[in-house]
Amino acid sequence: MKALVYTKSGKIALEDRPRPEITAPGDAIVRVTHTTICGTDLHILKGDVATAEPGRILGHEGVGVVECVGAAVTSFKKGDHVLMSCVSACGTCAFCRKQMYSHCIHGGWLLGNSIDGTQAEFVRTPFAEMSLYHIPEGADEEALVMLSDILPTGFECGVLNGKVAPGSTVAIVGAGPVGLAALLTAQFYSPASIIMIDIDDNRLEIAKKFGATDVVNSANEKAAEKVMELTDQAGVDTAIEAVGIPATFELCQEIVAAGGIIANIGVHGTSASLHLETLWDRNIAITTRLVDTVTIPMLFKTAAAKTIDPALLISHHFTLAEGEAAYEAFGDAAKSKALKVIISPA
Amino acid sequence: MKALVYTKSGKIALEDRPRPEITAPGDAIVRVTHTTICGTDLHILKGDVATAEPGRILGHEGVGVVECVGAAVTSFKKGDHVLMSCVSACGTCAFCRKQMYSHCIHGGWLLGNSIDGTQAEFVRTPFAEMSLYHIPEGADEEALVMLSDILPTGFECGVLNGKVAPGSTVAIVGAGPVGLAALLTAQFYSPASIIMIDIDDNRLEIAKKFGATDVVNSANEKAAEKVMELTDQAGVDTAIEAVGIPATFELCQEIVAAGGIIANIGVHGTSASLHLETLWDRNIAITTRLVDTVTIPMLFKTAAAKTIDPALLISHHFTLAEGEAAYEAFGDAAKSKALKVIISPA
Amino acid sequence: MKALVYTKSGKIALEDRPRPEITAPGDAIVRVTHTTICGTDLHILKGDVATAEPGRILGHEGVGVVECVGAAVTSFKKGDHVLMSCVSACGTCAFCRKQMYSHCIHGGWLLGNSIDGTQAEFVRTPFAEMSLYHIPEGADEEALVMLSDILPTGFECGVLNGKVAPGSTVAIVGAGPVGLAALLTAQFYSPASIIMIDIDDNRLEIAKKFGATDVVNSANEKAAEKVMELTDQAGVDTAIEAVGIPATFELCQEIVAAGGIIANIGVHGTSASLHLETLWDRNIAITTRLVDTVTIPMLFKTAAAKTIDPALLISHHFTLAEGEAAYEAFGDAAKSKALKVIISPA
Amino acid sequence: MKALVYTKSGKIALEDRPRPEITAPGDAIVRVTHTTICGTDLHILKGDVATAEPGRILGHEGVGVVECVGAAVTSFKKGDHVLMSCVSACGTCAFCRKQMYSHCIHGGWLLGNSIDGTQAEFVRTPFAEMSLYHIPEGADEEALVMLSDILPTGFECGVLNGKVAPGSTVAIVGAGPVGLAALLTAQFYSPASIIMIDIDDNRLEIAKKFGATDVVNSANEKAAEKVMELTDQAGVDTAIEAVGIPATFELCQEIVAAGGIIANIGVHGTSASLHLETLWDRNIAITTRLVDTVTIPMLFKTAAAKTIDPALLISHHFTLAEGEAAYEAFGDAAKSKALKVIISPA
Repeated sequence: MKALVYTKSGKIALEDRPRPEITAPGDAIVRVTHTTICGTDLHILKGDVATAEPGRILGHEGVGVVECVGAAVTSFKKGDHVLMSCVSACGTCAFCRKQMYSHCIHGGWLLGNSIDGTQAEFVRTPFAEMSLYHIPEGADEEALVMLSDILPTGFECGVLNGKVAPGSTVAIVGAGPVGLAALLTAQFYSPASIIMIDIDDNRLEIAKKFGATDVVNSANEKAAEKVMELTDQAGVDTAIEAVGIPATFELCQEIVAAGGIIANIGVHGTSASLHLETLWDRNIAITTRLVDTVTIPMLFKTAAAKTIDPALLISHHFTLAEGEAAYEAFGDAAKSKALKVIISPA
Repeated sequence: MKALVYTKSGKIALEDRPRPEITAPGDAIVRVTHTTICGTDLHILKGDVATAEPGRILGHEGVGVVECVGAAVTSFKKGDHVLMSCVSACGTCAFCRKQMYSHCIHGGWLLGNSIDGTQAEFVRTPFAEMSLYHIPEGADEEALVMLSDILPTGFECGVLNGKVAPGSTVAIVGAGPVGLAALLTAQFYSPASIIMIDIDDNRLEIAKKFGATDVVNSANEKAAEKVMELTDQAGVDTAIEAVGIPATFELCQEIVAAGGIIANIGVHGTSASLHLETLWDRNIAITTRLVDTVTIPMLFKTAAAKTIDPALLISHHFTLAEGEAAYEAFGDAAKSKALKVIISPA
Repeated sequence: MKALVYTKSGKIALEDRPRPEITAPGDAIVRVTHTTICGTDLHILKGDVATAEPGRILGHEGVGVVECVGAAVTSFKKGDHVLMSCVSACGTCAFCRKQMYSHCIHGGWLLGNSIDGTQAEFVRTPFAEMSLYHIPEGADEEALVMLSDILPTGFECGVLNGKVAPGSTVAIVGAGPVGLAALLTAQFYSPASIIMIDIDDNRLEIAKKFGATDVVNSANEKAAEKVMELTDQAGVDTAIEAVGIPATFELCQEIVAAGGIIANIGVHGTSASLHLETLWDRNIAITTRLVDTVTIPMLFKTAAAKTIDPALLISHHFTLAEGEAAYEAFGDAAKSKALKVIISPA
Repeated sequence: MKALVYTKSGKIALEDRPRPEITAPGDAIVRVTHTTICGTDLHILKGDVATAEPGRILGHEGVGVVECVGAAVTSFKKGDHVLMSCVSACGTCAFCRKQMYSHCIHGGWLLGNSIDGTQAEFVRTPFAEMSLYHIPEGADEEALVMLSDILPTGFECGVLNGKVAPGSTVAIVGAGPVGLAALLTAQFYSPASIIMIDIDDNRLEIAKKFGATDVVNSANEKAAEKVMELTDQAGVDTAIEAVGIPATFELCQEIVAAGGIIANIGVHGTSASLHLETLWDRNIAITTRLVDTVTIPMLFKTAAAKTIDPALLISHHFTLAEGEAAYEAFGDAAKSKALKVIISPA
């Protein structure tokens, strides 16, 4: 089969690989119909992710059709249309019982990381009972790829951890795909305002279309001052960090209201300063989270009810053979204006 | 009347002052029977608290007897025995309605800070309806001084924010009075273990008597390693910071379990490093809080039910005239072995 | 001044009354600009409410302009435009501190019940600091009358107690004003479906316009069967009772899903059967609540953000002189198609 | 093997049965070392449980040693000492993902109900990964039988649903084993008072020893009046129903405080009157629950920490051959003074 592989030279290449096979009773083999690229895939290409070694087929998102299942899988059978979670969860360990699938002792983020992933014609998905989801007939399957990772990430790490509420004020720092996913799902809770902060005017334009009440280009104006002005100097109830660098995390500390929450989504490579000298008495909370994808069932329901339109996040389409071009577009979003790019092996 | 005053030379002095008078309809004048010293009072003496100017009568804790009340006060009358909260709350502003009395727009921490405090024969208490509490007949009034600040602080900022739960594991960094207050109130929730960390063996001995299941002297052994060993390398569900310096806050980051909480109580003067490069995917929360004293009614009930014995925290007794000696004992706890010291004006 | 009074003969009459005066330091006198009629007013006319005696000026909802305030009122002054809560809250009793203003020891539902109410040119409002709310300039003041009682009632007793959530299924039994208020505010949380049940096709039509995803006329079809069919036999996550009779409460028991909630809003005059023989193992909750109006600040924010349009609930307008006609229209809604009727004294 | 069987004549009999065998990849076969009898077993003998047919081996509680496991079971192996939950949970269905194992679509209460149970030398346990728990070396295995059902039932349905809290007031109606289990686990949260109500003085004596602060014999005195007197006419914050008849459920309605919770544990055979005419405005909640046993891991930790002593609930010991005598003792507790009776097949 064809697959997109992380090569020794730190690049992506289309290669021929043998089809995966069932290796445990809980496995399923899925024929991938649509997959996509995540910011984490770019990190792997840079060599930032130690567990992902050269030769790995990338990708941890996607939808497809079940090809076969292991002996212990009873909820899925050949021909079922399924969504694949980016997290493989055993369902029974202490973390899974607390719905912290991300920290599953036997699973977690495996696909396209420590085992071969979804950017291929076929993929082996461990713990299929917990990690695959039936797609209802008639659904827009391509759009549902957004439920593998990006929408649960924005929703769980940003919106739920940030306790967005009716009438509350929200700032989202970073209008990339995950920040936009937070923007879309924050609206489930009817906040009074969502202020979007980025340095790319194109993305801020998109944020406005997606429901941001205010946008701030932090390259052009002092973002903290602007947010304080927009909130009558109170700051925001929820500040969502969706970039992953110290400067943006520290901006969140400047704009969070007394009693508010900083919900971190960003993948950080270095430490940041925590200004406890000003925050120790502000009754705030800071949260971090690797997405658990426990909200996939809820997101399915909101998508079916058309409360959210996941397709909004899709900007480009490629075939598997065009995989390198897909990475190029996704990797240079400032130029390509890419949000999420769909790669369709089938 | 006699009062302990923060002098221009940054010391404490016993001075003669006029008796306070009602200045607003919500005020009460309380004849102070017992008060105490807080770590914050020492900060004021060092000049760390800008709002507390030389000439201020110190003290924000205490019990006493109502002398007279303003026109709008209906729940208290002359002769009532009362506990004074360290926080004066108007009860009606947006923060008070959220039970964040600490951030009351009209009140907050006023006593012994921006207005004269309780280390005197008499004190004026603003917002008396919200900030005084009836003491039931027969109660140990001296012991109830611990409900003005230290017990709510340990409980609200440490235990409640830290979500201590039956069977959970807790570490408290700092076995000073506030750490010990967290230790005592954590036991309301029956955690499986409470590991106390300090550099003073005397205080660790006291911690054991107060219910710590394990103690670690971080001067003698590597605290993080020891805590990980005690928790089978999982870390603790709740790490309570009760010191207020970067080193102890960073220790909490090393020992918090995936999915756990760092609940900060410490008063910090500088920023600390937040290791987002290791914590971003650990699903943790960090909380800060200035005590709101919203749990004083609950603490009254637990004291009445003898679920907790507030008197345990009292180590020394002084008269108001001995105020300087009281400050000396409290300020050099390593030598005096002081926990909380009672000063009795009456 | 003119006022609508509950007469000895159990009717409403326009009478001349002396203007109210300040009687406690926490009082305010408000010149009423707009008020409305509540279902509870009709109960009073029937003699169902023991605390409301003949001769009482009715009404517990409204907006107006502050005429004067008592000595202890500092947040409001003559000329301020204000919303009046239907609940007068002292703010300091044990219930108020738990945000259960409805059970305030010194207040609660007083206006138009145990003291004279808002259906008059002027009204005395006790505990003004806690019970009046500033109206921002430029707001649609008439529409804000809906925030005195009906919207907080639907929201607090139905939506919040019922834990409506993104993707969840909701049924509201009763499409009268309070059921419609629940319908409007349930949408703050983006449920997947809201099934509205009533026997009046006109109101079901309105419900559809207001956002109901399905309507069931329980006079024409078996409501329980229909709801089970609409939910794939699972039942609803939240069943909101907004009628107040045994039949509708028992319908809720038939349609609530395992793990679901029955949130009662209805004012009941008799007991109902609770089918514990089928419900004991269904992991459900049943809640009751007298509105606390603690969500008025939140509702102000959502109205300002245009997340909700309170004016939707207003169907008719009357002057104070037309008060009897207003009661007639509101009392015979099947004929008049009335929702909430505005009465404007000024 | 030997087993206790529910016979056609509605009695219990010791019979010879073939050893169970693995029938699904998720099964385990456990050699039972200790089991016990539940009130539900008596219901089965009376014919009250339609799913439990004559010929069924009874019992859904117990500890033992793993004999063999199915192909999909990786966490357990021959020789492991295990606790068996009374609920078999697939772990992957929509209910299991919400931690409502009791309503597991593929499992739920199976053992000794729709499949053969634990009152035998061997038992087949479905969904072993989710439904067995490792017993740490050195634990009192016999005592841990109390974690199969009775302690989680008292804790989850009574204490957690009832939101018992530090300083709160609790009444438990029914001092049978499950009421006593609620009494023991309520103390995890340090309530100020726990009032135990029963008609059996012996059980009330035991309740006192187990930590009840007050006991009321409702045969001798008016229970509601007494509870109101003990709570200064406020009623209790939490009323736990642990009997299962209308009279005791209605007693809970009389004694619950405004803002309080009635947490039902009792298995009810008929409906009860719900006095909505007095409760509609009392801001209360009523909860029902079939135990999910999601708290078994937490209970293991509290037992290991000696926060609770499960052995307290054990009053009698029998061998499997003495099974009929065990049922007799448990069935006539008024005479035998039995709490939980241990039956030891091995």
